[in-house]
Amino acid sequence: MSMADTSSIDFYFDFMSPYAYLGSVEVERVSVRNQCTVTWHPVLLGVTVIKIMGLKGVADTPLKREYVRHDVPRFARYLGIPFNRATYEPMDSLHALRAFTWLQDHHPEASKPFAQAVFEAQWAKATDMSTPAAVSGLAETVGLDRHALQAAMTDEFVKQRLKEKVDAAVDRGVFGTPTFVVDGEMFWGADRLPMVEQWIRTGGW
Amino acid sequence: MSMADTSSIDFYFDFMSPYAYLGSVEVERVSVRNQCTVTWHPVLLGVTVIKIMGLKGVADTPLKREYVRHDVPRFARYLGIPFNRATYEPMDSLHALRAFTWLQDHHPEASKPFAQAVFEAQWAKATDMSTPAAVSGLAETVGLDRHALQAAMTDEFVKQRLKEKVDAAVDRGVFGTPTFVVDGEMFWGADRLPMVEQWIRTGGW
Repeated sequence: MSMADTSSIDFYFDFMSPYAYLGSVEVERVSVRNQCTVTWHPVLLGVTVIKIMGLKGVADTPLKREYVRHDVPRFARYLGIPFNRATYEPMDSLHALRAFTWLQDHHPEASKPFAQAVFEAQWAKATDMSTPAAVSGLAETVGLDRHALQAAMTDEFVKQRLKEKVDAAVDRGVFGTPTFVVDGEMFWGADRLPMVEQWIRTGGW
Repeated sequence: MSMADTSSIDFYFDFMSPYAYLGSVEVERVSVRNQCTVTWHPVLLGVTVIKIMGLKGVADTPLKREYVRHDVPRFARYLGIPFNRATYEPMDSLHALRAFTWLQDHHPEASKPFAQAVFEAQWAKATDMSTPAAVSGLAETVGLDRHALQAAMTDEFVKQRLKEKVDAAVDRGVFGTPTFVVDGEMFWGADRLPMVEQWIRTGGW
């Protein structure tokens, strides 16, 4: 048995999840309050939810679909996080996640600001971030060359790297986003961050 | 527009849901702290999740199944609620929900203590409450005749009454349990009770 490590949080996200967006903002607040680090990890919900779990996306699920449309803006107001997304066409997050994966390997210092810019564009500025053009359009905001980011999104090695990272998440038991792991304990859902923070502060229960 | 009514909480539950058990204990604490009433409503997850939403039960869902088995006892410890259920064979909650439905119509004062006894037996005492015999065995704990309760569970009118109540829940948009409605606002999940309490205290946001 090793000592409990409550000084770092693993954060699993898919850009297509509005709850992952809310979680991405809130988890950084938790980290500041508790002086711990946050490591971001990409997940493809199309792989975990659809292929592995055999479920459907929220947009295809009666009742839950209507609930989520009402709940997400209400949850954003509760947390004091900007949110502006009138339509809920499912976002294709593959290109943005490949760009993030490449950044993590080659420009790690830019990877989190880039991911935050994608989340903000998609969910606070009502910009569809499904296309490579939209994704590479954010290059300058993180000080990167647009063409390099665009090339990364079609690189076979990058595709393979993203696949490896998603496989590693699944091996750990991650299925939805946002998911947070602290001290080996996995918590699913932005609404569990108070519990994550309690775990960090107390060392668990 | 009517005035916001934050003095009562509608609580939707299915006995087969361990999160509904945790929510059933916690929502009564919220009601005591805020001097509001709680009205309990039965839901059949087999109808909402399987038939209407077209999803699968947790026991049939890889990754989520393993998460829930770890999360429920941890969540119970967090809330300080007794929990003891080593096995997770899905409970057949139909008989217990019919008994509850009959009690609501004929012995309303006994319906909530009865429901709390079912939840406690199922999730804190590791007793399978799937059978009519197990359900009617709780009659004395709420001051009722065992045979009357047993008869109610096979009464066609009671079956119809439960169906009506579940239909009414679905019409309102309820799909999972626990669900809480306060001031016309629906919140899904035991982990949303802090938000429900905030809504009651502030009148919403």
